[in-house]
Amino acid sequence: MRASIDITGTASELVLLAYTGDGKGKTTAALGVLLRAWGHGMRTLAVFLMKTPRYMNDYVGEYKALKRLGIDALYLEDHKRPEELLEEALARASDYDLVILDEFNYAVRQGFIKPSEVRRLLGLKPHVIITGNYLYDELLLADLVSEVKSVKHYYKSGVVGVRGIDW
Amino acid sequence: MRASIDITGTASELVLLAYTGDGKGKTTAALGVLLRAWGHGMRTLAVFLMKTPRYMNDYVGEYKALKRLGIDALYLEDHKRPEELLEEALARASDYDLVILDEFNYAVRQGFIKPSEVRRLLGLKPHVIITGNYLYDELLLADLVSEVKSVKHYYKSGVVGVRGIDW
Repeated sequence: MRASIDITGTASELVLLAYTGDGKGKTTAALGVLLRAWGHGMRTLAVFLMKTPRYMNDYVGEYKALKRLGIDALYLEDHKRPEELLEEALARASDYDLVILDEFNYAVRQGFIKPSEVRRLLGLKPHVIITGNYLYDELLLADLVSEVKSVKHYYKSGVVGVRGIDW
Repeated sequence: MRASIDITGTASELVLLAYTGDGKGKTTAALGVLLRAWGHGMRTLAVFLMKTPRYMNDYVGEYKALKRLGIDALYLEDHKRPEELLEEALARASDYDLVILDEFNYAVRQGFIKPSEVRRLLGLKPHVIITGNYLYDELLLADLVSEVKSVKHYYKSGVVGVRGIDW
């Protein structure tokens, strides 16, 4: 635990959260923190490191919600790789109170981002949340690590997803 | 898996999700689904089965957010018990597309609600999400069960919580 967080907790304190595991609820939990932070008037940047512009449309509930709430969001564009998107996010991070780096751990697993990049997140001003299924040593540098395990999932029954629940 | 959910998924299909486990991210994930559903214009009722009016104030990020978004929320009032609040939620459920029953499993563990009440949730019109740390047999009747396990938590370092992250 870094000394910068005390028992009462304030928005100015640094914290790194990680949601990993094979269950549904990682990106979803990050969106939940975003809602909580938005309620407090905190400024949030949502960065979808592995999601292409195909994901930026009115088919997607969180895209529509972020747009309506006026929350800044960055997605992968065709000419941009996850590691370039991460650099852009890090360059802009100081303007925000909360930065979500969605699928960070998956980008690590796929080799786009080095595990050691977690150390750079510890030096940022805002709270940072990283998501994605992959538990590696450097992830334990985070202040909080929750592993979302799938006990039962309708994917196994052939259901791809449900509107409003999964997207 | 109930036959009412097909491979494409639509808002009219019934689904019961459960977030359990000892890690941070259960209520948070429910709030994330709420955001996603709100983006689609779905009507949500958020029911906090174990939270008193002390929780309904501007200290709490999700309370401020739900209020600003115009989402209906029910909390425990001093004269009302969790099982009465559940009855009220069930009576109103048909007016909504998504109902969140926060701390349902904890209310079961504490003896306020019977485990068999899960069966009644399967007969409702809206999607339902239940949260709370307690994994019992009837919970496996849900379509999706994710167990959020704590790998590392700052609570253990004496940090009660961080504004915008925990509340």
